[in-house]
Amino acid sequence: MTRTRPVARLRPLGLDEVAITGGFWGHRQHVNATATLAHIEGWLEREGWLGNFDLAAAGRLPEGRRGREFSDSEVYKLLEAMAWEIGRAGDPGLDDRFRAIVARVAAAQEPDGYLGTVFGRPGQAPRWSALEWGHELYCLGHLFQAAAARATTRPDADDGLLGAARRAADLVCEVFGPDGRAAVCGHAEIEPAMVALARVTGERRYLDQAALFVDRRGHGLLPDIEFGRAYYQDDVPVREATVLRGHAVRAGYLSAGAVDVAVERGDDELLAALARQWENTVARRTYLTGGQGSHHQDEAFGQDWALPPDRAYSETCAGVGSIMFSWRLLLATGRPQHADLVERTLFNVVATSPSEAGTAFFYTNTLHQRVPGTPARDDEVSPRAASSLRAPWFAVSCCPPNVARTLAGLAGYVATADDDGVQLHLYAPATVRTTLPDGRRVAFDVETGYPRSGTVAVRVRDGAADPWTLTLRVPAWAEGARLRVLPADGPPTEEDVEPGTATVRRAFADGDVVELHLPVTPRFTAADPRIDAVRGCLAVERGPEVLCLESVDLAAATGGRLDDVVDVGVDPTVPPREVDGAVVVRLRPAVAPDGSWPYGPPPGRDGTGDGVDVPLVAYHDWAERGPSTMRVWMPVVRG
Amino acid sequence: MTRTRPVARLRPLGLDEVAITGGFWGHRQHVNATATLAHIEGWLEREGWLGNFDLAAAGRLPEGRRGREFSDSEVYKLLEAMAWEIGRAGDPGLDDRFRAIVARVAAAQEPDGYLGTVFGRPGQAPRWSALEWGHELYCLGHLFQAAAARATTRPDADDGLLGAARRAADLVCEVFGPDGRAAVCGHAEIEPAMVALARVTGERRYLDQAALFVDRRGHGLLPDIEFGRAYYQDDVPVREATVLRGHAVRAGYLSAGAVDVAVERGDDELLAALARQWENTVARRTYLTGGQGSHHQDEAFGQDWALPPDRAYSETCAGVGSIMFSWRLLLATGRPQHADLVERTLFNVVATSPSEAGTAFFYTNTLHQRVPGTPARDDEVSPRAASSLRAPWFAVSCCPPNVARTLAGLAGYVATADDDGVQLHLYAPATVRTTLPDGRRVAFDVETGYPRSGTVAVRVRDGAADPWTLTLRVPAWAEGARLRVLPADGPPTEEDVEPGTATVRRAFADGDVVELHLPVTPRFTAADPRIDAVRGCLAVERGPEVLCLESVDLAAATGGRLDDVVDVGVDPTVPPREVDGAVVVRLRPAVAPDGSWPYGPPPGRDGTGDGVDVPLVAYHDWAERGPSTMRVWMPVVRG
Repeated sequence: MTRTRPVARLRPLGLDEVAITGGFWGHRQHVNATATLAHIEGWLEREGWLGNFDLAAAGRLPEGRRGREFSDSEVYKLLEAMAWEIGRAGDPGLDDRFRAIVARVAAAQEPDGYLGTVFGRPGQAPRWSALEWGHELYCLGHLFQAAAARATTRPDADDGLLGAARRAADLVCEVFGPDGRAAVCGHAEIEPAMVALARVTGERRYLDQAALFVDRRGHGLLPDIEFGRAYYQDDVPVREATVLRGHAVRAGYLSAGAVDVAVERGDDELLAALARQWENTVARRTYLTGGQGSHHQDEAFGQDWALPPDRAYSETCAGVGSIMFSWRLLLATGRPQHADLVERTLFNVVATSPSEAGTAFFYTNTLHQRVPGTPARDDEVSPRAASSLRAPWFAVSCCPPNVARTLAGLAGYVATADDDGVQLHLYAPATVRTTLPDGRRVAFDVETGYPRSGTVAVRVRDGAADPWTLTLRVPAWAEGARLRVLPADGPPTEEDVEPGTATVRRAFADGDVVELHLPVTPRFTAADPRIDAVRGCLAVERGPEVLCLESVDLAAATGGRLDDVVDVGVDPTVPPREVDGAVVVRLRPAVAPDGSWPYGPPPGRDGTGDGVDVPLVAYHDWAERGPSTMRVWMPVVRG
Repeated sequence: MTRTRPVARLRPLGLDEVAITGGFWGHRQHVNATATLAHIEGWLEREGWLGNFDLAAAGRLPEGRRGREFSDSEVYKLLEAMAWEIGRAGDPGLDDRFRAIVARVAAAQEPDGYLGTVFGRPGQAPRWSALEWGHELYCLGHLFQAAAARATTRPDADDGLLGAARRAADLVCEVFGPDGRAAVCGHAEIEPAMVALARVTGERRYLDQAALFVDRRGHGLLPDIEFGRAYYQDDVPVREATVLRGHAVRAGYLSAGAVDVAVERGDDELLAALARQWENTVARRTYLTGGQGSHHQDEAFGQDWALPPDRAYSETCAGVGSIMFSWRLLLATGRPQHADLVERTLFNVVATSPSEAGTAFFYTNTLHQRVPGTPARDDEVSPRAASSLRAPWFAVSCCPPNVARTLAGLAGYVATADDDGVQLHLYAPATVRTTLPDGRRVAFDVETGYPRSGTVAVRVRDGAADPWTLTLRVPAWAEGARLRVLPADGPPTEEDVEPGTATVRRAFADGDVVELHLPVTPRFTAADPRIDAVRGCLAVERGPEVLCLESVDLAAATGGRLDDVVDVGVDPTVPPREVDGAVVVRLRPAVAPDGSWPYGPPPGRDGTGDGVDVPLVAYHDWAERGPSTMRVWMPVVRG
């Protein structure tokens, strides 16, 4: 593909170059592969969302069609997840299942390339007639991303998916190209997807089409709706916006696609606009967990500083969208803060959604549960955000396959390369094997118990005659980090490293070890006072993990005397500390006026009684022990 | 009407017995009469909601019908407002307009009594086929309340409104009676309305029908919806519920009707259940302003303690519904806390909605405006909650006529009577003339500059041979109140009175004066610490009024140095005080970390720089000076 002037600083590595071999994320990938994918496939069959393609192929639609207008996309996201998983682990049984689904999808494709089960047939609305809510291009976007993932991990597969995607993409270019309808989809996704397809096929016009969609948005081509055009980012052109707004998933997907376009076209102005939007969004509209979107009503960003923990929507899919955006900015700019947010969001949003078993999910991710939820039934479709407990499936079930595709392809986020070396962004037991543009071979293993341990060891597996540069991300929270270099045949050296990145450039020999020591002592965290909703509170973090207080632990620690997190606050004079492997804080009953009207003269004190030590749990592990109340931000009380 | 055993402690007084003669509320009533009523009538014509009745009468519906499914109700609410206003001021021109609208409405009534423009015609859904969202009985309820208001203030009017209401009510009894459809309306309103109609007509079966509707609710007769059956209070039977929940307007209207039913039927169990719900709702789910409903998504109550000021929905109509509920509990129980909430809600929700000119309205009433809003255009219909500025009309325009009917009939909330005297609940310049059941004549004037002044003088105008009891409400905030009795012909006496009620029983002589002195010094108010969203904040109140900080005043006081209320906090060591008639607080710039990530180690201090004195304004007066940011709850900062 002809590029004007690609501006990306870093090159992503493929699943043939990086593998996660264990640890926190290795375990998550294993659960995803062995439980989640089959779980999703089963529900897609059960709910008829896969069957819709069979009905389409048989010419029987619209009668009998099931699911919402975007249900096709869940099938495509499952295909993408399977494609990454096949690339990761190469399971032939999974490959058979993948091909079987592709066959059913492809059978529904129409001669002109159109693919979709909702529009265009007698008895259905015409194609492209409801761009604001129809999700028609959105669904095709997910088809294209599945095809791109497959083409990346199995370039020689003859399953027909890439061909189907290309035919559909050609149709999109024909209908919506420069001489076609000047329109965009209400839900961004076609934008990054067409760039992905352009990259695997070399088709320049897919990129141009993506650029057209990006440039068109923000000019009011979509109708005004109750939530305003900001809901689908059609209020301000992408290159003029200063912050993300509106529906958080849409905002993330659009921004990711726009970075792709900027990078491929060497559009520095567009890239700078997106970087500015990212900065402002992260500084003012992002939860401690990395979660984004504080409105239930429209699943949208709130205004600056409006980040209520209890009504946090923090949709799982918005976390995925945020990672897509941040990752692309990281590739484009090399700035480690983008990787910081990727890591934070992975640990505290993406890892929070699925249950330990991988068969139930949070659609939204509240930071404060006020009322113990009702357990979702294993065999029932849940509303999106009704319960504090994870549910197996939702009427709108975008999160399960979105989590699955992210986990299956996660090794792709571990490391990147540039002309002179390799950059490690996520810390997990891993193998990295790649070749730099000039032919230098880079091979090392990562050995770590991160995030439980703060020590990350990079063990070089293949000496190179020429030096290369190993770059290690030092997270922003890691004040006091140290870097040790332990050559296979020489004395070790050690130095302090500042948050940002640490680099070691040398002619690495087989057996050389570089060790990064990150301080993962638990710490109190406060919020910018402009975030009104958590004023006077502290959270506790440990490494990249946000912790939380669950009522089940409060009840256990107080012998049942206190069983609701609303009743206590945290003693700020006793730092959080580890006791028998658990992070513990000192809590104390909060003074609560016992009145019929909750407002009155300022009280003299806020805490009462003796403190009690209560263990916290990692936020991603909450709600695994039945209904509970929970809070990430604990009010400060003094004795 | 036969009553089993009415349990009401207090008797409401009619507009022929109480009149507001000036002051804060007298001015509001004047604006309502001279500007608001015509404004509403004009918009009802312009938007075609009145014209819908003409189309119905001409047999031309459904073509050309305009407005939402509940637009009929706005016409009825205007009629109710006009009926009260005619009763209040007796304007004959208004009576002509009233009759003209009644004629258009009545012309649309069908032979069997059905009245409505949305259902039942060819091309429309069948009658009563969409009870969950159709608002069919809700609309009729407002018709009945208009008819009841008219029958109360003009019992001899021959305009046909009461007859039309009775025919429709008879149809409702036939369709939904004991042998009819066991159903309820998704939006409560028919319940209090049928009791009101029963009271003016003496028709027992209207009361029985209201009781049936109340008893049926909470048994899942309405379908489950995304928001759950709690949205329309169909989740728990009224007599089993412990707190208000779901859509706040529906909850208020239903509760009001249920109190009516309980009182008329002597149903102590039901009354106790409602009193309990009121207590819990006021203690845990009510804003400082009296506003109720913290969710934008479903216009609903949040969970206990979930009262974010910035996402406060606090719908104007929910304030009206809350007043309806509280007022009925006051009548039933005589407890002054119900009148306290009525007054609080009147001053801080109902009075906040309309502009000074009475021609623009807040639909919702946020307690914290983060971003200056866009002025609404005088000639444009606004979405419900999009702007921080009042708008002339909304797509859903329930608030203008709801405010209008409340203000027009407001004298009815000033005082009540029982067997031995009169109780004053609201303080305004007023005349009270009534006769006790045994024939004792009570006549007095109220002279006061309340709420600006805390002195309320009751001047007896008609001596009575026999003693009677004057009861004065002492608001809960009025610690240190004093009561003086100044007989026309004797020495004055004076005593401390506690919040609750103060009574004077004597054989009053013409010219006797009873003076209540309420301390209206401005005061700091803190919130129960379980209300997380305003932790570490103080509000300022003065008498019954909640005050707020507007950016326009901050900018003026700092010479433009600070122009956003997000930048400052309040010095808690300097009490609010009055300077040149304005309440002033000491503000200080808040320390705001200047970083790209808004979370980090706890800072050492929260305030910086010198304090500056800034005037506050009454919350009901905010947003009268153009776009601004605003907050009721100010963060505490120390220097």
